[in-house]
Amino acid sequence: MNIRYPNGAAYHGPNQAANKQPVTTTSYSDRGMSLEAELNESNQYYLANDIAVIHKKPTPIQIVKVDYPKRSAATIREAYFRQPSTTDYNGVYRGHYIDFDAKETKNKTSFPLKNFHEHQIIHLRACVKAGGIGFAIIRFTNESKTFLLPATTLFEYWDAQAHDGRKSIPRDVIEDAGFLIPYHMNPLIPYLNAVDQLIAAQK
Amino acid sequence: MNIRYPNGAAYHGPNQAANKQPVTTTSYSDRGMSLEAELNESNQYYLANDIAVIHKKPTPIQIVKVDYPKRSAATIREAYFRQPSTTDYNGVYRGHYIDFDAKETKNKTSFPLKNFHEHQIIHLRACVKAGGIGFAIIRFTNESKTFLLPATTLFEYWDAQAHDGRKSIPRDVIEDAGFLIPYHMNPLIPYLNAVDQLIAAQK
Repeated sequence: MNIRYPNGAAYHGPNQAANKQPVTTTSYSDRGMSLEAELNESNQYYLANDIAVIHKKPTPIQIVKVDYPKRSAATIREAYFRQPSTTDYNGVYRGHYIDFDAKETKNKTSFPLKNFHEHQIIHLRACVKAGGIGFAIIRFTNESKTFLLPATTLFEYWDAQAHDGRKSIPRDVIEDAGFLIPYHMNPLIPYLNAVDQLIAAQK
Repeated sequence: MNIRYPNGAAYHGPNQAANKQPVTTTSYSDRGMSLEAELNESNQYYLANDIAVIHKKPTPIQIVKVDYPKRSAATIREAYFRQPSTTDYNGVYRGHYIDFDAKETKNKTSFPLKNFHEHQIIHLRACVKAGGIGFAIIRFTNESKTFLLPATTLFEYWDAQAHDGRKSIPRDVIEDAGFLIPYHMNPLIPYLNAVDQLIAAQK
């Protein structure tokens, strides 16, 4: 599982490659690229080991023009990126519906709320209301520390913006209300351990 | 909720339109278009009424070339359709993880298994193993009758192909092991009623 190409990307062998989403696709958002690659690899580990089925959703594309050349694959010739109406990741773990987004910040003392779009908050709220487990995975890139932040804390600071004008979540709140995800070998980002803690805390 | 354009597509008003996936996008698969449109509308109803959060996943696209024109949106100039590694629909309902694919057939007496790809079966198996609710929504277009078929029955016939060579699921098996989904007004395809029956049957 841990053979790597010279550029650091994981080598997954010929068997797995066909149906997986390549980690290097350019259809991903421009933020959080390295956290995203690590999460995709972690999700592949969880899937291969029958632990959880969690995938990153493809970026929605509005297709305008497609060519159908003879004897070769359909080629999209004009298309545009669309705003997704959900978060990026969802799936199932221990019978629980899991839904989250992953974000990185260069800030050291707080996490700016502008990293989230309103539609992501609306979606997470709906998921939690329907009985799902919602959260954000937040990385402070400076120290490369990654936390799982429960959606409820995110909602609290999102809603408070209108009243107190504070546009970020303080780092110490994330440390207190969230769960640190230490780096590991397999998987690289063992975030489901933090999900276990979140589920236990909700009982 | 039920205003319609002359072509029969639902009108959802200006507020909802922005972040929703348009039902008419050309990025959907070429099969099951009308069942798919009806399911998307049903999912919008479930979402708007706080019943469930279930979305169709965007079709994965491999992007090769993107233009970034000045003062206008990034334009994808070369891209290809990719094989999805999951089913098309997933989400959360009553705390349960829900995962399914929707298929139509013109056959009258059986449902051909070639409508499924192996990766969809593999994905559904993994979801069920992780504690999710997996199924297929199957429509016999001739009579416009729609059924929810539990994943376990689908697996049974999928696995039996290798032994008995039978390449389809008999219609009477689908009627017996599945749950009829009668047309309704709101939502059009009330498939979560059938999911309730499936959950009750599993207890």
